[in-house]
Amino acid sequence: MASVPTEIAVLGGPPPERRDAARNRARLLDAALRLVDERGADQVTMDSVAAAACVGKGTLFRRYGSRAGLMLAVLDHSEAAWQAEVIGGPPPLGPGAPPMERLLAFGRSRLETSLRHADLIAAASGEHGRSHAAAAFTVLHVRHLLAELGVRGDLPLLATAVLAPLEASILVQQVRVDHLSEGRVLAAWSDLVRRVCRDPL
Amino acid sequence: MASVPTEIAVLGGPPPERRDAARNRARLLDAALRLVDERGADQVTMDSVAAAACVGKGTLFRRYGSRAGLMLAVLDHSEAAWQAEVIGGPPPLGPGAPPMERLLAFGRSRLETSLRHADLIAAASGEHGRSHAAAAFTVLHVRHLLAELGVRGDLPLLATAVLAPLEASILVQQVRVDHLSEGRVLAAWSDLVRRVCRDPL
Repeated sequence: MASVPTEIAVLGGPPPERRDAARNRARLLDAALRLVDERGADQVTMDSVAAAACVGKGTLFRRYGSRAGLMLAVLDHSEAAWQAEVIGGPPPLGPGAPPMERLLAFGRSRLETSLRHADLIAAASGEHGRSHAAAAFTVLHVRHLLAELGVRGDLPLLATAVLAPLEASILVQQVRVDHLSEGRVLAAWSDLVRRVCRDPL
Repeated sequence: MASVPTEIAVLGGPPPERRDAARNRARLLDAALRLVDERGADQVTMDSVAAAACVGKGTLFRRYGSRAGLMLAVLDHSEAAWQAEVIGGPPPLGPGAPPMERLLAFGRSRLETSLRHADLIAAASGEHGRSHAAAAFTVLHVRHLLAELGVRGDLPLLATAVLAPLEASILVQQVRVDHLSEGRVLAAWSDLVRRVCRDPL
């Protein structure tokens, strides 16, 4: 038989125990993300995260399995904050601006976060890039904006194509290896987007 | 002082000893590529390559350092054969067809080889995708075709953007995970290319 809950759940939210656990989890991931931003993902060890978050190293390994598992959780945590900006933050990244302005702001923001977190993306996910869930969100968003712009065609695949040059591996090659300016890369991406969105002849 | 060569070099080619070595090297990489095509890269061990190429396993490790090193050499060998088709093979992939036909044939061929060698690309290069030299060739070729098509803009970056959706990691997600047909993916890529190449309004 199912056990009787010992606490009454708060309406509209998880029970207090789970809410505390979620808060602790977010605090730990915030601390890890700060370390990644300060030192670069390569320099962040399980020891340093454990110390910064005031938990035991054993706890970290139990929760995340491995350093790669922790890095993936940190990346997902940061992606979730970024998605919240896209869904409900101020325009032009958030709602309220015309769709082309939103799309160009999206590209600029994605370029910045991809470069900022390139090492984290590599540490988290090896050869596979970002998680599929994170990629699916960006495709959905761009597809929605392309539809608002009146683009006709295979929109999910056009969205994937428009997003592909913003992959961290490509941007790292362009900006850190080939030393192209972020401004030039962004201008070329914006040009691509305008070409994709032009009315057909 | 430099030592006196003990053999007279053949005009227009490397000395016999080096020519033999190059031939042996190509034979070994051909054997390894056949194994990869038959079994999938994941199933190809250093033992199986050594047996197929009739060399000792120690020779393989001395020459290529590691399994990843061998896989990279196999991939480069296969890319070189593909590049030869693009540069001098029959049209429309090779020269002689109008530039848009060549570009579309290039996309189809790249999609096929990326999917055929996706496991090899992963085994060879981990998170970094294909070698930079291989990527540079494709950018140069697409940039040249865009110029022939009269496209104006930041051509090397537009070429990179057009090539990005043909990365093995993206195609594997679309075709093997999401079960989109290769025909649909290729049609969407061709649509992208036509949009990029349209005259500006």
